Amino acid sequence: MTLSPPVVGILGGMGPAATVDFYRKLVEATPAGTDQEHLPVVIWSDPRVPDRTAALVGDGEDPTPVLRAGVTGLAAAGVRLLAVACNTAHAFVPPLAAEAGLELVSIIDVTARQLAATLPAGATVGLLATEGTVTSRLYHDACAAVGLTVLAPEPAEQARVTAAIAAVKAGTADASGAAALAEVLGTLRDAGAEAAIAGCTEIVLALAAGTDTDTDAVLPVVDPADLLAHEVVRRARELRPDPADAMS
Amino acid sequence: MTLSPPVVGILGGMGPAATVDFYRKLVEATPAGTDQEHLPVVIWSDPRVPDRTAALVGDGEDPTPVLRAGVTGLAAAGVRLLAVACNTAHAFVPPLAAEAGLELVSIIDVTARQLAATLPAGATVGLLATEGTVTSRLYHDACAAVGLTVLAPEPAEQARVTAAIAAVKAGTADASGAAALAEVLGTLRDAGAEAAIAGCTEIVLALAAGTDTDTDAVLPVVDPADLLAHEVVRRARELRPDPADAMS
Repeated sequence: MTLSPPVVGILGGMGPAATVDFYRKLVEATPAGTDQEHLPVVIWSDPRVPDRTAALVGDGEDPTPVLRAGVTGLAAAGVRLLAVACNTAHAFVPPLAAEAGLELVSIIDVTARQLAATLPAGATVGLLATEGTVTSRLYHDACAAVGLTVLAPEPAEQARVTAAIAAVKAGTADASGAAALAEVLGTLRDAGAEAAIAGCTEIVLALAAGTDTDTDAVLPVVDPADLLAHEVVRRARELRPDPADAMS
Repeated sequence: MTLSPPVVGILGGMGPAATVDFYRKLVEATPAGTDQEHLPVVIWSDPRVPDRTAALVGDGEDPTPVLRAGVTGLAAAGVRLLAVACNTAHAFVPPLAAEAGLELVSIIDVTARQLAATLPAGATVGLLATEGTVTSRLYHDACAAVGLTVLAPEPAEQARVTAAIAAVKAGTADASGAAALAEVLGTLRDAGAEAAIAGCTEIVLALAAGTDTDTDAVLPVVDPADLLAHEVVRRARELRPDPADAMS
């Protein structure tokens, strides 16, 4: 028997709870009735990656060496597609994927394409993300390329977003964080946003901690991790349409 | 910077949903306030492993080669501890861990030790598991070694357990499966069991699909995946008490 290596590599750990959530979304996005019909996956979840935002907005340690170790480890395992379960890390990952010979399925690009397909041309999109993602203009640039304008919160509102993300990472997310995010969404809507990007893998978890907060009633929120999961399934199946083929 | 490899390897994919659940339990079992305090983990989730039960009770394909590929892949990534998120696979995995030089944290042994610590000597414990786990007597033998007797369901009841597990793997678990498991637990209790082992990683997910079914009122159910998660955290911290040490 020749067993091909797993096709999909997930670089996670940023943070671990968001990695659990992303893998769950990938499993749920896979049309499968038995174990054997699911995608073979290797997940490299090393949370020792230094804080991405601290490196982007201040003088924090460069996360590149730890990110490179993960990308290299996944490449050594034989994967071909790379999915990174952290929006902010996309400010660092594209050259690392290229040097390892992996095809990056970018959470940023997938999201920008999906928004362009569903919103009117020239629409404004709100952004809930880390300061690092906002400062790096990852979503600003990707959305501009498809004719959309990104609107990030003002500094005082951004601080509330940052606090909600930190609470998820600390395991202390509660309804107050979700309520704060709902208010930020309201401000973005009032400023002209027609939808918002949950542009940090922890944002969806923060929103879920508020069972009484229906943020979609405030502004439709797009989950990039969910879009990425579906795109990874689609690309993996293109590479190997029938999982059983790999067994022969 | 010298970055040590991730300490913990998880062999998953059997099935993928149970792997998501096990990694979530590991994250929740870790005392951590920031990403960086969590355990570095590599998860090898290759669902192409042939059905373990079919190999144990019939003439199904031997899962050993695919399991070996995963164990070898994790060893190549540099992990030292191996946790396997599938009870039935423990009928095959111990020699593979040994040949790869990995320390297996056995879900079976952890569970037997915990039961012995909490139940009266000589107690009887019910077993909800795959036919493969029942036939291989993994839990029977490990519990006998600590003075406990394992009681598996009669064939007609076992068929209901098997169906509930298959529904989780197919993504079709609902309240009827949880209700069936509650009835099987009642039968085991009436036959003398003082507790039960959720001895397949899908059983807990099947029970969770029945929101109106309080199975703990029927018989206390022990979750081996949860016990394994806590034991992995304990052993990993013994190997490297302070995660920050690995960064220097």
